[in-house]
Amino acid sequence: MVQTVGFIGLGIMGGRMAKNVLKAGVALRAYNRTAAKAEEVRRLGATVAASPREAAAGADAVITMVADPPALAAVLEGPDGALAGCRPGTLVIDMSTVDPDTSRTMAARAASLGLRYLEAPVTGGVGAAERGTLLIMAGGTREDFAAAKPLLETMGGKILHAGPMGSGSVMKLATNLVASSIYTAMAEGLVFATKAGLDPGLVAEVLAERSPLIASAAPRVLAGQFTAFFPLRLSHKDVHLALATARSLGVPLFGLGTVGQLQTAALAKGLGELDQIATIQVLEEIAGVQVRTPPTAIRSPD
Amino acid sequence: MVQTVGFIGLGIMGGRMAKNVLKAGVALRAYNRTAAKAEEVRRLGATVAASPREAAAGADAVITMVADPPALAAVLEGPDGALAGCRPGTLVIDMSTVDPDTSRTMAARAASLGLRYLEAPVTGGVGAAERGTLLIMAGGTREDFAAAKPLLETMGGKILHAGPMGSGSVMKLATNLVASSIYTAMAEGLVFATKAGLDPGLVAEVLAERSPLIASAAPRVLAGQFTAFFPLRLSHKDVHLALATARSLGVPLFGLGTVGQLQTAALAKGLGELDQIATIQVLEEIAGVQVRTPPTAIRSPD
Amino acid sequence: MVQTVGFIGLGIMGGRMAKNVLKAGVALRAYNRTAAKAEEVRRLGATVAASPREAAAGADAVITMVADPPALAAVLEGPDGALAGCRPGTLVIDMSTVDPDTSRTMAARAASLGLRYLEAPVTGGVGAAERGTLLIMAGGTREDFAAAKPLLETMGGKILHAGPMGSGSVMKLATNLVASSIYTAMAEGLVFATKAGLDPGLVAEVLAERSPLIASAAPRVLAGQFTAFFPLRLSHKDVHLALATARSLGVPLFGLGTVGQLQTAALAKGLGELDQIATIQVLEEIAGVQVRTPPTAIRSPD
Amino acid sequence: MVQTVGFIGLGIMGGRMAKNVLKAGVALRAYNRTAAKAEEVRRLGATVAASPREAAAGADAVITMVADPPALAAVLEGPDGALAGCRPGTLVIDMSTVDPDTSRTMAARAASLGLRYLEAPVTGGVGAAERGTLLIMAGGTREDFAAAKPLLETMGGKILHAGPMGSGSVMKLATNLVASSIYTAMAEGLVFATKAGLDPGLVAEVLAERSPLIASAAPRVLAGQFTAFFPLRLSHKDVHLALATARSLGVPLFGLGTVGQLQTAALAKGLGELDQIATIQVLEEIAGVQVRTPPTAIRSPD
Repeated sequence: MVQTVGFIGLGIMGGRMAKNVLKAGVALRAYNRTAAKAEEVRRLGATVAASPREAAAGADAVITMVADPPALAAVLEGPDGALAGCRPGTLVIDMSTVDPDTSRTMAARAASLGLRYLEAPVTGGVGAAERGTLLIMAGGTREDFAAAKPLLETMGGKILHAGPMGSGSVMKLATNLVASSIYTAMAEGLVFATKAGLDPGLVAEVLAERSPLIASAAPRVLAGQFTAFFPLRLSHKDVHLALATARSLGVPLFGLGTVGQLQTAALAKGLGELDQIATIQVLEEIAGVQVRTPPTAIRSPD
Repeated sequence: MVQTVGFIGLGIMGGRMAKNVLKAGVALRAYNRTAAKAEEVRRLGATVAASPREAAAGADAVITMVADPPALAAVLEGPDGALAGCRPGTLVIDMSTVDPDTSRTMAARAASLGLRYLEAPVTGGVGAAERGTLLIMAGGTREDFAAAKPLLETMGGKILHAGPMGSGSVMKLATNLVASSIYTAMAEGLVFATKAGLDPGLVAEVLAERSPLIASAAPRVLAGQFTAFFPLRLSHKDVHLALATARSLGVPLFGLGTVGQLQTAALAKGLGELDQIATIQVLEEIAGVQVRTPPTAIRSPD
Repeated sequence: MVQTVGFIGLGIMGGRMAKNVLKAGVALRAYNRTAAKAEEVRRLGATVAASPREAAAGADAVITMVADPPALAAVLEGPDGALAGCRPGTLVIDMSTVDPDTSRTMAARAASLGLRYLEAPVTGGVGAAERGTLLIMAGGTREDFAAAKPLLETMGGKILHAGPMGSGSVMKLATNLVASSIYTAMAEGLVFATKAGLDPGLVAEVLAERSPLIASAAPRVLAGQFTAFFPLRLSHKDVHLALATARSLGVPLFGLGTVGQLQTAALAKGLGELDQIATIQVLEEIAGVQVRTPPTAIRSPD
Repeated sequence: MVQTVGFIGLGIMGGRMAKNVLKAGVALRAYNRTAAKAEEVRRLGATVAASPREAAAGADAVITMVADPPALAAVLEGPDGALAGCRPGTLVIDMSTVDPDTSRTMAARAASLGLRYLEAPVTGGVGAAERGTLLIMAGGTREDFAAAKPLLETMGGKILHAGPMGSGSVMKLATNLVASSIYTAMAEGLVFATKAGLDPGLVAEVLAERSPLIASAAPRVLAGQFTAFFPLRLSHKDVHLALATARSLGVPLFGLGTVGQLQTAALAKGLGELDQIATIQVLEEIAGVQVRTPPTAIRSPD
């Protein structure tokens, strides 16, 4: 097991994941673009670094958890980047959601510097990040996966080796693809039935049986609570990474293409920082109906 | 509780439901267009009628369970139809999946003859029909719902009153809308990841956490088992009832519209009698990849 | 050539077509549901009938030009319908846009009464109806087509025999399919480029080269003139007749399906009586941009 | 007017455009990645350069005409790139189809080296390139547009100033967006009507009135001639540049998104080097029908 980890990216997810690494007794060298977000882990014992390079210096492993491919390039590459700070043989583990090409490019860059690289994107949302029960889908060699596994277990409940480099990203994009499609289906079902005059609470109860995602999201829609578990802006980014990857593979995704356009419409309404389920507001506005239930509403018609 | 029920429509679902009514000690007057399908309930004690009218004659309640709106009109209307056979005050319960306009039209016709009418479509598939644990979503007056409830409880595990006439159909169409969208998302996720070189079994395992529908369907896709739990032909019918109803309500359903076109493509390939999950074959053919795993395949790469 | 024609349906299109028949010296027995619309042809010499049946009585041929399949059934069938008024051998020519099944059903009904039937839907819009230069696409036997041709030539510039009964409807639906797709493409191009900051007038000028439909429609969009040449409500009806027909033929229409959902969104905004090009307002609202140019705008940036 | 031009990219379009520049009496320093393609202009008097840098050396203006943004970066940037070869003040004119961000990035890079930059994508296809009648849509300052205009007139029939840097790309993407949507609509109309049993030749004749693009393309579809006027691979690239640009602007393009997925399906079938109209083969295969007419077919049913 590694003794010291450089942890880069302390956002909604990364901050919680870093705390779980710390709690497992690993020394942490933390970096975040906005320094204020590093305060909490500093209080818990982490060293705060002034650059990704400094966070990587002297670490046995480096973890990155940032928003998208450009953000990943920004923290790994260049004179102040983490790759420049690693000593030979260091294992770099990217836990961000990127596309497989980005993973392969970064892995090649790391290899050219004598470093090892594993992609290990996660799913489960804020709650699982907090509890250390994320599903982690790794791509890379068996050796690197085996080496990283004990560290990953401080953050995740289920750790899968999806296959060679790029497979972790594909697995993550596939599971996000399904999630955003389910939220779109929920939105269509709720708006359709509500416009037809049904009690949204009762509809939500029935639709909840179709997916635990709906069971969790529908009550938030009804309560008008769109605080981000997973911001629309990032979901939109993932949907388009999936579409671009599928395009290069020769796989048409008619359903997801539609989901992507609805999300673009929601972004145009300025909903990017809300949860991805806020996309329902596009349909509500077009259909001229609100699914939201007044807090005092009595659920059932009988 | 009713003593005698006329039961019309003994297909995959109706046959199983009728048996549960019989087991509860209710006398059954059964009718099916193809008489051979009535043999099993006859052996269990049902009287087999030669026409819907004859099945309804002398019954306290009439249940219909047929394929679509035209089939419903065919068994209810005309000189040999069930409505002509009912005595005044009889409760007619349609458990087929139709659109709300059809329910309202049939209810009005029944009312004009002094009959009562409840729509009560079901969800849960063949297994729940067999076990008597269907989810039943009724539309109609509270009085008719209350009167029908004990009888419905012989077939269902959860009996909801969705609201006035038409609400049961809307609820059913909404839940089917979500189900067929989820199967489409599963198909896109599986084909995408398989084309990218991942092990379909591992992908299926991850996607299964997104929905119990996927947990049940993905292994069947991998095993190449497309025997109908719910035939594509009927799912396609429901999708288009939902689209037509949404259209008349002024609710655009971009996602479901796409699902409907993919199902049309699958029907054009002659897959109508297979399960609705067979729609994945359209994507497989376009992408030039097969998700099916050889039975001997070893699942995990590590 | 026929001497007397029963003309049923004097709307935006039918009224203009009836006048051209009259001008050709044919005696006209006109009927319209809203009687006031018959005033103009009465002044030009037509006899106004009190029912479709009365309009058909004594005519050598009957022409119908109504909104949709139910409206067609309403004027042809029943005791006051045109079919009941025709003497044996009369040629009934339906010029409405319906689906091929409706044409086949009506033709069979006419045949059972000893009547002849031709479907002959038109394209070209209000201007061509006024000038008598419609494109007419007939379906039926060669004999009936030959018999109707001189009469059709009073209204049309190009008269095609598309094939047996149903073929005229299919041809019409195919050409409308292409038209509404082109208007949707125009809307996407205009909103996209305008949001990017380009001069809409210049964009319209470039897109106009892609289709005469755009050359005619784009200036109206820029001027904010959405008066109906062809009302969205009817275009939406035709799009869904095409989708339903294609579905029954096993032809997925992914593009048209999307067009249909955008039109549903426009109808939900209450734009049904405006021209079909008003669908652009859905995109404008989502994108937060108006393509309309102030009347005083100077077009070109150089 | 410029005396010497460096011309980079001698493909299907660029080769023809370079010849028109030569014919106008301008000295040409030509470069193409595959040197063989430079033979024809060499015979007509051009100097063939060994690198983009060499082509630019000593030229008054540099023209680039390559496949996509990466290809553009490859010929402009780096030690052997054209920018490195230009003397200060040289006007670099990119006539490729790229997205506005790429144009802005390249323009900034040129400016930082003391060079001037104009984007000037074209439309009209191979025929217009041959005849020197392209429509050219320029983005950049008025001064640079004015300076480039005489040179552009050797290649184009209509030269528009679309607005500041990026506007030319947007205009081009908008017009391509409309074109690929029209080809998709044509494909849907032809396959739909042919499956319904109509004569494809007659359908093509009617649809041709909707757009000159259809008038030109439909006969090629019927003849089974899919030789590239504009290869599907490049059309697909443009569609996705438009989708990505629209996404960043907050403009959902539901119709174009669908077109893009159908093109991905066609690419998966290996049709990338055929003309973009070959996308119809995806629909033909799904629908199980061929639009192609035997060469001896007699057109009309009457």
